[in-house]
Amino acid sequence: MATPGRYFDAASGLPLHPTAIQARAAAETDGWADPNRLSSASRRSAVLLDAARSAVAEAFGVHSDEIIFTGSATTALHWAVLGAVAGRQRVGNRIVLSAVEHSAAFKAAQWHAERGGVVDEVGVDDRGAVDPDEFIAAAARPGVAVAVLQAANHEVGTRQPVETISAQLRALGVPLVCDATHALVWDRRPPAAPIFTADPRLWGGPAGVGLLVVRRGTRWLPPFPTDQSESGRGSGVPDVPSIVAAAAALRATQASAASLAVRLSRYVDRLRTEVPRLVQDTVVLGHPTDRLAHLVTFSCLYVDGEALLLELDKRGFTVSSGSSCTSDTLTPSHVLVAMGALTSGNVRVSLHADVSEADIDAFLQTLPEAVATVRAELPQPSVDNPGSGLANSVVTTTPDGLVIDSRGRRCPQPVLDLARAFGQLPVGAEVTVLADDPAAASDIAAWCRMQRQEFLGSIDHEDGATAYRVRRVG
Amino acid sequence: MATPGRYFDAASGLPLHPTAIQARAAAETDGWADPNRLSSASRRSAVLLDAARSAVAEAFGVHSDEIIFTGSATTALHWAVLGAVAGRQRVGNRIVLSAVEHSAAFKAAQWHAERGGVVDEVGVDDRGAVDPDEFIAAAARPGVAVAVLQAANHEVGTRQPVETISAQLRALGVPLVCDATHALVWDRRPPAAPIFTADPRLWGGPAGVGLLVVRRGTRWLPPFPTDQSESGRGSGVPDVPSIVAAAAALRATQASAASLAVRLSRYVDRLRTEVPRLVQDTVVLGHPTDRLAHLVTFSCLYVDGEALLLELDKRGFTVSSGSSCTSDTLTPSHVLVAMGALTSGNVRVSLHADVSEADIDAFLQTLPEAVATVRAELPQPSVDNPGSGLANSVVTTTPDGLVIDSRGRRCPQPVLDLARAFGQLPVGAEVTVLADDPAAASDIAAWCRMQRQEFLGSIDHEDGATAYRVRRVG
Repeated sequence: MATPGRYFDAASGLPLHPTAIQARAAAETDGWADPNRLSSASRRSAVLLDAARSAVAEAFGVHSDEIIFTGSATTALHWAVLGAVAGRQRVGNRIVLSAVEHSAAFKAAQWHAERGGVVDEVGVDDRGAVDPDEFIAAAARPGVAVAVLQAANHEVGTRQPVETISAQLRALGVPLVCDATHALVWDRRPPAAPIFTADPRLWGGPAGVGLLVVRRGTRWLPPFPTDQSESGRGSGVPDVPSIVAAAAALRATQASAASLAVRLSRYVDRLRTEVPRLVQDTVVLGHPTDRLAHLVTFSCLYVDGEALLLELDKRGFTVSSGSSCTSDTLTPSHVLVAMGALTSGNVRVSLHADVSEADIDAFLQTLPEAVATVRAELPQPSVDNPGSGLANSVVTTTPDGLVIDSRGRRCPQPVLDLARAFGQLPVGAEVTVLADDPAAASDIAAWCRMQRQEFLGSIDHEDGATAYRVRRVG
Repeated sequence: MATPGRYFDAASGLPLHPTAIQARAAAETDGWADPNRLSSASRRSAVLLDAARSAVAEAFGVHSDEIIFTGSATTALHWAVLGAVAGRQRVGNRIVLSAVEHSAAFKAAQWHAERGGVVDEVGVDDRGAVDPDEFIAAAARPGVAVAVLQAANHEVGTRQPVETISAQLRALGVPLVCDATHALVWDRRPPAAPIFTADPRLWGGPAGVGLLVVRRGTRWLPPFPTDQSESGRGSGVPDVPSIVAAAAALRATQASAASLAVRLSRYVDRLRTEVPRLVQDTVVLGHPTDRLAHLVTFSCLYVDGEALLLELDKRGFTVSSGSSCTSDTLTPSHVLVAMGALTSGNVRVSLHADVSEADIDAFLQTLPEAVATVRAELPQPSVDNPGSGLANSVVTTTPDGLVIDSRGRRCPQPVLDLARAFGQLPVGAEVTVLADDPAAASDIAAWCRMQRQEFLGSIDHEDGATAYRVRRVG
């Protein structure tokens, strides 16, 4: 099926590409048997699997025997990271990774840490990029088994300095696992890393296939039980029709990827320019140019990200949100926290081939209305009417200045409470916000940066809450 | 597609059931999005996933929240075993399993052992069944985290005494992991075990789905990294269209399973009776009645299993063989070794709905010719012409009797050499076979049992070979 043009969540996966549907249907006839057996049905299956493997290898410029198909992209990343650790256990048990990796990398690292391993996180700048020197310094410590770095960030699109880092890691003898999931939608060349992963869902392949590449000569051992599949580096009977579909979708999309990237990048540039112009109190995140072609994230102040996502959904646009409110765990997006960005009210737009300029126009028309609708549900701070919407009981005047009690209130309420009260304050006044939503830690500091106010710091308060102190400077 | 009637390898997997193909195609339109997100596309996906889960739960008489979909049946068994260990690590680190489990259970156990765990194997009788008392005695030892037992054997079809064992394990407080892969093609009731697994490929579902069931109240923890999938007990974006296909195939086949079992069991009875009558020097393995409806394995003496499989394949019949010669590792089937059966020259026939009585007739007509063709390539032992085909250099007369040097010769050669030389010997004479193929250990003893000769034992010989000693008693 064609992807709906107003589906702006390509980075969460696309429908099967029409070519993949055809390829899978054909492969269901000839590729259903276990390719690791001896019958003629199995041999036909093995031929299809080999052909799919060669096609993927050629598309990414690697050797067929470097490819390991897994049951999902998540599994590929788990195996990539933990297999590198397994292959280097004599060297050490330390994993170095950036603070903005995909959660699957963190889950693998956490699994390692729960079994006695050590995990070091390397921070990022406010655009989401690691500093190469800082990353290398962390990776150069004794006992580092593997360094993990994405090719580009999945939430804000910023590319990481993989090339620079890779060369230095090679000199150090530390293998790099590169999560190339999002970059490989666009890049024909493999990332400069001995181990990398990709996700066929992002180019119109099925969910049941993940791609792990281990370049020749790399120390890597399967971290979990295996069998004869994938030359002893995989497990289970491979789903040949799905693998064939993944390869077919890749071939079908890769030829036009370069020209598509130019077109979508232009749309993204438009969004980066026009969204903050059309929607008040909005910031665009991530690097403006060294980024994925198709993806942009912006944060709208005083908005609940989930509410905005659902409002846009009602109006026919599908987007994603890293907002804490969208997740079951109520923890804010670790990517946005690491960048020091506002974690509430953010919207990720990720585009694909079936998006037209008209869809972008329509989105730019719809977004301000959608934000206004959501904001109307939460009384907004206003210069004309400072303090409006604040319950009397929330704000107390104390000898230390105004205290805003936002305990029990979820993002974006603490920031909204602060903003509402702020209008009443003279320049130089200080205010304390009490909050227990963990997102407040990131959001209050981010709000201060956005509004050019001074964030003085935070201390633990009773009841597990935190007291954040802010000074009005302008 | 309809499965070819002469495809006699249903236990290795079937083509997608026509209903599954339709269901998957429909689900590709509505179930491609990640069901764990918030958009309307995701919600449609989640509805399909929930419906598939309910259908599978209902078919097997379990609760929906007891079902965990994995990326393959192999993964399901790994997670079943190692998750039970993870949930009971305070109790101990011992896994008890039968000697005839699927290799996936052994791979999981091996992974555990490589990390300091202990694995105890419980042997089986010559039909492949465990003795309940012996199994329980092993499971009752201190420090047993989990007991693992298949519902029925995948190579010879013998059912295991799961019901009896389960009740006693419950009293001991030791959880049972039951690999119900092959039995659940036929059984509507769940196996009497708190944890069990199944493989949709065996009822016409896709390869990319495995089924793990953890009954409520069971101590079980995901052994490997997870995310929000499967209520935090799975990993990766689920392949909803494939899961829907697996559920559809199950519903489509389960209604007729009982009557189909009767028909196929009749075919199996015919094969069990007629194969040894039609093909000289053939034994049928496994329990004659307490067995899977659709599966039978027999061993032909003096035949290379792989050669027979390929000969049958040429003649249009697909079977499977547990012969050592069919595997890359050249190790004999651990199931047949555990049963003390001949590991060479065996053929597993497993049937399905599209097999007709005429296909069985054709097979019974073809098999003797196929065996004769394969045997013609290896000069056979003969009463009329003892010693024929034995190179002069192979047999030496020593003060200790005849010594047959079969070193460097692969199964079934050592047994064939023995049989050829045996005809020359008087009753009471002893003969020594030197062999380095590991299958000889099982095969020479099995040949003695089949031929009612006396196996005297074996000792290590130089060069890593083994010396087997046999006495002619009739």
